[in-house]
Amino acid sequence: MKKISLLGITGSIGSSTVDVISANPDLFQLVAFSFYSNIEKGKDYIRQFSPKMVSVKSEAVAVELAQEFPQTTFVSGVSGLCEIAALPELDIVLTAVMGSIGLRPTLAAIEAGHDIALANKETLVTAGHIVMAKAKEKGIKILPVDSEHAAIFQCLQGEKMSQVDHLLITASGGSFRDKTREALKQVTVEDALNHPNWSMGAKITIDSATMMNKGFEVIEAHWLFDLDYDKIKVVLHRESIVHSMVAFIDGSVKAQLGPSDMREPIQYALTYPDRAYLKEQQPFDLTKIGALHFEPLDFQRFPMIRLAYEAGRIGGSLPAVMNAANEVAVAAFLAKKITFLQIETAVEKAMAQHQVVPHPSLEDILEIDQSTRTLVESWISQK
Amino acid sequence: MKKISLLGITGSIGSSTVDVISANPDLFQLVAFSFYSNIEKGKDYIRQFSPKMVSVKSEAVAVELAQEFPQTTFVSGVSGLCEIAALPELDIVLTAVMGSIGLRPTLAAIEAGHDIALANKETLVTAGHIVMAKAKEKGIKILPVDSEHAAIFQCLQGEKMSQVDHLLITASGGSFRDKTREALKQVTVEDALNHPNWSMGAKITIDSATMMNKGFEVIEAHWLFDLDYDKIKVVLHRESIVHSMVAFIDGSVKAQLGPSDMREPIQYALTYPDRAYLKEQQPFDLTKIGALHFEPLDFQRFPMIRLAYEAGRIGGSLPAVMNAANEVAVAAFLAKKITFLQIETAVEKAMAQHQVVPHPSLEDILEIDQSTRTLVESWISQK
Repeated sequence: MKKISLLGITGSIGSSTVDVISANPDLFQLVAFSFYSNIEKGKDYIRQFSPKMVSVKSEAVAVELAQEFPQTTFVSGVSGLCEIAALPELDIVLTAVMGSIGLRPTLAAIEAGHDIALANKETLVTAGHIVMAKAKEKGIKILPVDSEHAAIFQCLQGEKMSQVDHLLITASGGSFRDKTREALKQVTVEDALNHPNWSMGAKITIDSATMMNKGFEVIEAHWLFDLDYDKIKVVLHRESIVHSMVAFIDGSVKAQLGPSDMREPIQYALTYPDRAYLKEQQPFDLTKIGALHFEPLDFQRFPMIRLAYEAGRIGGSLPAVMNAANEVAVAAFLAKKITFLQIETAVEKAMAQHQVVPHPSLEDILEIDQSTRTLVESWISQK
Repeated sequence: MKKISLLGITGSIGSSTVDVISANPDLFQLVAFSFYSNIEKGKDYIRQFSPKMVSVKSEAVAVELAQEFPQTTFVSGVSGLCEIAALPELDIVLTAVMGSIGLRPTLAAIEAGHDIALANKETLVTAGHIVMAKAKEKGIKILPVDSEHAAIFQCLQGEKMSQVDHLLITASGGSFRDKTREALKQVTVEDALNHPNWSMGAKITIDSATMMNKGFEVIEAHWLFDLDYDKIKVVLHRESIVHSMVAFIDGSVKAQLGPSDMREPIQYALTYPDRAYLKEQQPFDLTKIGALHFEPLDFQRFPMIRLAYEAGRIGGSLPAVMNAANEVAVAAFLAKKITFLQIETAVEKAMAQHQVVPHPSLEDILEIDQSTRTLVESWISQK
């Protein structure tokens, strides 16, 4: 029985995690979780799981919920997230909160000696050097939840990292993969949210359309698997059936594939090193899919990928700037304040103006994150 | 440094094995090998490797070669093969001889406690129950050399057999995959030998066209991976890029892929559990291949697959009959004595007439092998 804390229960990954936990009451116990704005859904989960501790957005909400659910302890804010991440009885902490807010709780969980099932991109993108060093020091595992990294992680089982030639991360290309740069000038929020293969949150769907998401994944792969950027390649694969691949020094390539169902990588991270039967599996028949296509990635067409490699290679505080600028720009696009292509412009400009700090501390990163947000917001408000 | 004995050095697998061994003199030493009719090529290999012992077809050849190469011991026949397979200093024996002649030497190698790199199909098809029981008893590994089983074996690294849902063996469909049953009536030996993806020996190329080869692989997979036939599926994949797959209980599928280069699985079997850089790798770029296709297998179109499942499920001596009948029929087709479709007829008829022996001994198998050959040869000579 694994005791789990789930940071971000009401999001897309959170809901899939709830499905996995509910379907396997003999394997998993949800001890603690967090939610922010979706309080009604959060209350349903409290009724369902009777958690020991719940973290919410504000002290006021915590006080209110404590009256309704006296058997649960309520905490709030980032310190609340850190508290539910560091509960001593936990076996694993799944961090599915969005944005740089996931950073401190992840470190708190590692500090407490808990394995991490990582669904928060910003953790490794902005602070990979800190998180991986701390994980190594504490001897804990960082288990990827993202389908691409989970695929690579699965392909690496029973293999030696020294015998890996390179990784091949697959990219669907997002909602706009068949549009030219010219056509991208006109796209709307509604167009962008219409992802061909995956049903995900709004932010990640936009990041998928710009390919920033794939860029994040390249940087995450660098940290998770401790590989040079030259050994991390991206290939366009429009069906999203092959979730990623690993090429070895003897020319053998291993791929992990399956339906677009986030429950699989989530469950794998929670059952690792074992696998459990996945209830209500989507039928998966390659002969019905018929063909899998692979195309080279055009860095001109998807400049965000180029920027991400650049940010990853230069390193230091640059990925944090890229991430913060992107987060603000995507929010502005979703709020219809800027156009789709202005997301890229904002990220590129923020990166170009930044004076890189080579080995930023956690405080440096959070400060740079904040200052970048302020800067990009000011550009947007001037438009 | 692994000390290797190679049974069948002049065939297609043997030549690829020589390439692998020659390219890695720091990893491998070829201590012994065998050859039959291709004596000139065999002599070149004696000059190249200065082996301790060599097995040849006849005592006469052995005596002649012993004069030319006094530093090498020459043995002959099946007993010679058994001798070079059981040399005490060996680490691994690669059995690449064709036909049921591979059976006794493989058992001799296991008895001597050597791991087996298995490229001889008949060993497991006809005597899987004996070979696997003996391997288990002696605690030795049977490492598959066939690209399909090597793919499955690679996908299973770091996994538990109890968490495997099924295997997916890929089949190119052979030279005649796009021909109807009607069109098959007219095909020639030359047509059949023109395999679309792999360059192999004549016998296996014909077995590939009839899909008997795939049927053998199903039976081999049953023994190698100890799985019920219901858990072994075959899927048509015309590119032969995905060499095979494993589906797990959580819906995750792992595939192994790469160029059609037998050196990879051979080298993997020899370096296992490690991998080594494969020299002069064929360029492999999925984006150049573009698309991978998967189609369901039509048992009506490929009745040999149906026969193989039937032989495997019934078991006992039936697979040995299927194999012997097929070997004689393929030889007759290559000698232009029967038509392509008569290969199937001969195999089906031999299987239908056979009184199955449930747990045949090695002697039973060799006897049934011989009597089946005699029977099928008599049918053919009557035509």
